[in-house]
Amino acid sequence: MPTPKAASSRTPDATRRSERSRRAIYDAALALVVEVGYARTTVEGIASRAGVGKQTIYRWWPSKSAVLLDAYLDLTGQAGQEIQAGQDGGEERAEPAGSAGLPDTGDLAADLKAVLRATVDELNDPRFEAPTRALTAEGVIDPELGARFVERLLEPQLRLYVRRLAAARDAGLLRPGADLRVAVELLVGPLTHRWLMRTRPLTHAYADELVDHVLQGIAPR
Amino acid sequence: MPTPKAASSRTPDATRRSERSRRAIYDAALALVVEVGYARTTVEGIASRAGVGKQTIYRWWPSKSAVLLDAYLDLTGQAGQEIQAGQDGGEERAEPAGSAGLPDTGDLAADLKAVLRATVDELNDPRFEAPTRALTAEGVIDPELGARFVERLLEPQLRLYVRRLAAARDAGLLRPGADLRVAVELLVGPLTHRWLMRTRPLTHAYADELVDHVLQGIAPR
Repeated sequence: MPTPKAASSRTPDATRRSERSRRAIYDAALALVVEVGYARTTVEGIASRAGVGKQTIYRWWPSKSAVLLDAYLDLTGQAGQEIQAGQDGGEERAEPAGSAGLPDTGDLAADLKAVLRATVDELNDPRFEAPTRALTAEGVIDPELGARFVERLLEPQLRLYVRRLAAARDAGLLRPGADLRVAVELLVGPLTHRWLMRTRPLTHAYADELVDHVLQGIAPR
Repeated sequence: MPTPKAASSRTPDATRRSERSRRAIYDAALALVVEVGYARTTVEGIASRAGVGKQTIYRWWPSKSAVLLDAYLDLTGQAGQEIQAGQDGGEERAEPAGSAGLPDTGDLAADLKAVLRATVDELNDPRFEAPTRALTAEGVIDPELGARFVERLLEPQLRLYVRRLAAARDAGLLRPGADLRVAVELLVGPLTHRWLMRTRPLTHAYADELVDHVLQGIAPR
């Protein structure tokens, strides 16, 4: 998320206008990449659809890929907040999923299932599915764009899983020598594969099965 | 692979010319999809690059996606033959990997590792990697194209794995109630995910780790 230059010297009205522009730009960028694909999405097109000048976009972002990345991170951050708020009964505003750790109730299987089920819901949500497909497809072809998404979005998520598994291992609940990174890929890889290839429906039951399978594989012998 | 109409009434020379055209069309189709992407690949472009008339392509295939699918299946069939021939020491010409079963030496872990290592080699082979990425990316966005690739290429492969695991289960080497389909997705999903997202290098060691992990999860208790 860009910080508008000299934000501290702005009036509250100017800040509100910036915030409105930013939101319009994000919405336009995600809508365009879904409708016409990554290759045909342009900064001009985003500006026109958002009702702002092209220079407004270039003041905050160097390229269309930078706008799209921020727009998408904003979308996933929102989704994470909604999921967590739902789990808390909406009582309090939780940290976005990306910045907080995974839940740790002491029941590792239940915690992993809760997180993977939330991921299933997110991937099945059309608001979320279409831009994720458009950007994932582009990352599959374009190594540089793929690397930026992996670095800013996927790897931080994988590290949260590894951290949660490490806590369980340190508590003696997993085999001491288990490779936790591979274990995490065994959870996230099949889920993503089934979703990307649409081989079978992506369900909570599948999320649960993956967790049971993987935990069986790294249980103490 | 299309059967040229009335092939039996053709002279040997005409059959050879058809075969040369077919090969030129496949090569042109795969080269184009890598260079310009799926959206900008056209039947006209394929014909021009292959040095054949557009009508030659339409005589055998109804659409560009049909040509690309056959071209890609031809490529993977070739790759499968080369891998199997290599394992046989080149002594005899084996069936394409897609039509034969997985190896069954009685050592399940070794057999699965051999197959997954061959998959790693294939995915790391530039001749194979670029068209696979181009077509996978398009299938991620286009449900119809994705479904055709899954039906003709991915599902037949997954069934071979399931069949090999079922033989091991019937021999008492796996837990009787294990879900073999999920087990196969646990092998193939993380491998594909790591390759698509380029999170880490795709190595034989990783293939071996996946097999050990998954077999541990479905071993008899």
